[in-house]
Amino acid sequence: MENNEKFMRLAIEKSLESVDNGGGPFGAVVVKDGEVVAVASNSVTLDNDPTAHAEVNAIRMACKKLGTFDLSGCEIYASCEPCPMCLASIYWARIGKLYYANTKVDADKIGFSDSFIYEEFAKPESERSIKVVKMLRNEAIKAFENWEKKEDKVDY
Amino acid sequence: MENNEKFMRLAIEKSLESVDNGGGPFGAVVVKDGEVVAVASNSVTLDNDPTAHAEVNAIRMACKKLGTFDLSGCEIYASCEPCPMCLASIYWARIGKLYYANTKVDADKIGFSDSFIYEEFAKPESERSIKVVKMLRNEAIKAFENWEKKEDKVDY
Repeated sequence: MENNEKFMRLAIEKSLESVDNGGGPFGAVVVKDGEVVAVASNSVTLDNDPTAHAEVNAIRMACKKLGTFDLSGCEIYASCEPCPMCLASIYWARIGKLYYANTKVDADKIGFSDSFIYEEFAKPESERSIKVVKMLRNEAIKAFENWEKKEDKVDY
Repeated sequence: MENNEKFMRLAIEKSLESVDNGGGPFGAVVVKDGEVVAVASNSVTLDNDPTAHAEVNAIRMACKKLGTFDLSGCEIYASCEPCPMCLASIYWARIGKLYYANTKVDADKIGFSDSFIYEEFAKPESERSIKVVKMLRNEAIKAFENWEKKEDKVDY
């Protein structure tokens, strides 16, 4: 548990630094085999990138460092409960274990709409705030058929 | 509707090209005021980035081009129904309208676990496949307090 606390404190330290440096109040750390692979903070406003949450940044950094898109065997420490984007990116990266500190309710209280997005996900598509139009599936499916037929594809 | 089809066909075209070029079978286009701002495909395996889905790539590209993290007033055309990561990133980017063609069920059939992740989201945390540990909220909350107190912060 001692190491877990050390890694989480590193994520928290980044979140504190980030506030001072003009980023969002979030930090994340990716760990593999007891070693820190990546440490990142939220840089949405600094990088003009709405996807640059701490967890996404840490995952991108870890993948770059390890030369892979597959972080199986890694753990992630997030100073706040991941939003749906970050949680899904953790799944896509195949990270098996998540530690977090602040909650989505805490995030909501300081103006980050994590809970709102989670609620949207739970609604049927037609009741969500975003307008959705389905079209041209009959044409788009060709790419999926080609993918299936491709013999040298890199599965992920 | 004619323009909508034109934009969706551009996303589909990118998805087809992507399969030929070694990327995943997905394309996305961001449009503002009837003009294409960004066109992207999935580059997870090409870039070693599990977050590099077509929609995320298109959003990042559009933000870079427009010099903002806020794509209010933009629309996104995705050759496939967005996975939870991409859908959340569309919310964070404040895109108001989404067009898609293939569905998450189609994606699942060719080996992309979009539906699996949506199902995980609907489960209580303790029943998800990813292990979750909560810790040190009492220390992490300091960053949120500092954020609240900060007068020159860039809200988003």
